[in-house]
Amino acid sequence: MSVDESDTMISATSMARSALQASRELAHVSTEIKNRCLLDLADRIEGRLPSILSANQKDLEAAKSVGLGQAKLQRLALDEASIRQMAAGVRSVAALEDPVGTVTKDISVPSGLNVKKVRCPLGVILMIYEARPNVTVDAFALCFKAGNACLLKGGKEAHHSNRALAALISESLRCCDLPEASLHCLTFSDRSQLMDLLAEDQCIDLVIPRGGSELIRFVHEYSRIPTVQHFHGVCHIYVDEDVDVESAISVCVTAKTSAPATCNSAEAILVHQAIAPKIVPRLLDRFAREGVEVRGDAQVLGFGSTAVPASPEDWGREFLDLIVAIRVVSGLPGAIDHINEYGSNHTDVILSRSEDHQEFFARRVHSSCVLINASTRFNDGFQLGLGAEIGISTSRIHAYGPMGLEELTTQRYLVRGDGHTR
Amino acid sequence: MSVDESDTMISATSMARSALQASRELAHVSTEIKNRCLLDLADRIEGRLPSILSANQKDLEAAKSVGLGQAKLQRLALDEASIRQMAAGVRSVAALEDPVGTVTKDISVPSGLNVKKVRCPLGVILMIYEARPNVTVDAFALCFKAGNACLLKGGKEAHHSNRALAALISESLRCCDLPEASLHCLTFSDRSQLMDLLAEDQCIDLVIPRGGSELIRFVHEYSRIPTVQHFHGVCHIYVDEDVDVESAISVCVTAKTSAPATCNSAEAILVHQAIAPKIVPRLLDRFAREGVEVRGDAQVLGFGSTAVPASPEDWGREFLDLIVAIRVVSGLPGAIDHINEYGSNHTDVILSRSEDHQEFFARRVHSSCVLINASTRFNDGFQLGLGAEIGISTSRIHAYGPMGLEELTTQRYLVRGDGHTR
Repeated sequence: MSVDESDTMISATSMARSALQASRELAHVSTEIKNRCLLDLADRIEGRLPSILSANQKDLEAAKSVGLGQAKLQRLALDEASIRQMAAGVRSVAALEDPVGTVTKDISVPSGLNVKKVRCPLGVILMIYEARPNVTVDAFALCFKAGNACLLKGGKEAHHSNRALAALISESLRCCDLPEASLHCLTFSDRSQLMDLLAEDQCIDLVIPRGGSELIRFVHEYSRIPTVQHFHGVCHIYVDEDVDVESAISVCVTAKTSAPATCNSAEAILVHQAIAPKIVPRLLDRFAREGVEVRGDAQVLGFGSTAVPASPEDWGREFLDLIVAIRVVSGLPGAIDHINEYGSNHTDVILSRSEDHQEFFARRVHSSCVLINASTRFNDGFQLGLGAEIGISTSRIHAYGPMGLEELTTQRYLVRGDGHTR
Repeated sequence: MSVDESDTMISATSMARSALQASRELAHVSTEIKNRCLLDLADRIEGRLPSILSANQKDLEAAKSVGLGQAKLQRLALDEASIRQMAAGVRSVAALEDPVGTVTKDISVPSGLNVKKVRCPLGVILMIYEARPNVTVDAFALCFKAGNACLLKGGKEAHHSNRALAALISESLRCCDLPEASLHCLTFSDRSQLMDLLAEDQCIDLVIPRGGSELIRFVHEYSRIPTVQHFHGVCHIYVDEDVDVESAISVCVTAKTSAPATCNSAEAILVHQAIAPKIVPRLLDRFAREGVEVRGDAQVLGFGSTAVPASPEDWGREFLDLIVAIRVVSGLPGAIDHINEYGSNHTDVILSRSEDHQEFFARRVHSSCVLINASTRFNDGFQLGLGAEIGISTSRIHAYGPMGLEELTTQRYLVRGDGHTR
């Protein structure tokens, strides 16, 4: 690990090269040693709770002095509970199965060769994120467990917190005789240096930008390295004709209200016209009571006075707030057309008792996660059984949907012969 | 399918959009109908053999008149046998298992949700290649069988051949009531149009550039769409101390001579110093008789007069010709260091009787394909049991090594609940 006050002085090339070197060593470190390092890190985090809090305090004071908004301050702030949660997260990654070395195919081909496909680390991962300091620990734990070296570029607001956490990671790595350069924690705030790193496609295998869409677009624009994008979630729920009304209302309302600012919260609800009279008035009522603004089409407005007219831009918009769009559709094909036009390939739901309709919807909606009779909010690595996730990919290459340990590896061929020539 | 003399007039955006629309339909076409279309195409190719040959003749005449080199002319030329082989290739893709819909994971999570991971098409694939007209048919067959629409941009030298083949594909698609825009065969020769297409990241999911490294670099530089790179193969063979000498000589020689211009032919041979006196003189002798130029280090030169001194640039060079570099190394770690320094992550081989050494090598050489006691020439989709391949990826994202049908798909989540909320 290297945290350097003068990392503005270290060239992107030498950082990337040392990470590449470390990744080659990490690729063949045993699961046991990786887990020992992670458990050591979890203990250290809990053992140094006061010093992490005081580093975080410095960040918070600096952020307040420059007038950082309340939402950002909240994302930046750590407390005892969130630090203990960080340690628990590291322990849970240690408990996950190591994907490296898993044989995914083992066949004999006609020439007599034995052909295996085996999981191996990606190599070097550059992750760019914003103010949450816990991402530093979460991302390191996942990348490291999958055998990768990582370059972590956190928000400059979290400078002191990230340095304190990275110092602990450094100690744990040293303690287990693992390469220091398995983690580079980057603290520069200069975009030109980030651009230098984004050009290091000979050493860095993957870039994961996580944060606002401006950041993602910047990285996507300038990177010469493959990028897995975690773009916005414009998640839809389609309420079909034949549906359990109580359950549908409950799914629709909680999918917005339980965490309105997350990427898997529902942004638009499409209701079959035949069931609309039973569903829409009740949705309007529930949303009004929950303080959710409804933007509706003409038919929705006809069902109650609490909705405001949706503008054309409201279809396909990620509100990330207590706002939801509702539209009445003529049926299943109309709902699918709407989703294919305005969705973002993140998460889409059908609520229906008809198996034919469920199947029809699932075959024609191509999002990373299609849910049948369940809330959009379940598209999440923990909820889908991955144990942990580094983000949700909305691009189809390499990984589509929540990315866990397995998605931080690739597969290669290992072939055995007996002097085979051709 | 659309082949248009005036495709210089169709905007990149409208081409990409129509391909996206077609891909949404193809995603839920049954295996039976896709296979029917492929078998129809194979029959058509054989049935129209004379017209394909005459289109190819036009290309050959034009190419000769502008003085195209012999090697390129050979790649461009079709004959009855190669056309029949094309048809056979299409039939073999029809016979392959359809990856779309395969369930790769099926679990129940604690909330009671059923979580499935299911293979689905990538969507729209843009492939850019050079003069071989058979790639038009091969690439269409693979992309289509995996449920993808494709935009194929072949070399302008193969204009007439590609148009003739694309017209047959068009007929087969129409015959099976499949969307015309499942294939766009692009004939423009203007790079600015290619750049327009490379900007269509909302509609195109993957770009596969296949051809010279200048082409690959151009695409990589300008594409806003994810790219799977099929870069050069600087393939190594390491001959360990404890080895079957006869077998080692045979693997080394044929790995160069059987197809010197392919990406999986051996470019460098590293010989353990302890076995060098038994191996190197015989390699020099065999290579001299086979007309292969050997570029050796000082120790190799000491074993015979037929080698010439290797320049520093010869290590890591893809000769693609009857030239091979040979170096004597101090042992296994030296060989691994050499490969990690000069290799291209394509294919590397260890020839050794020692299981410990095989294992040590396989864990520390991170190429897409590591072979033990077999020739580099086996890193090939057909030889590794994939049935067919669209190329060999040397980047670790999405696919690493030969890309078959499975690598032309992605996986998404399909989740079933019973009114689950959170």
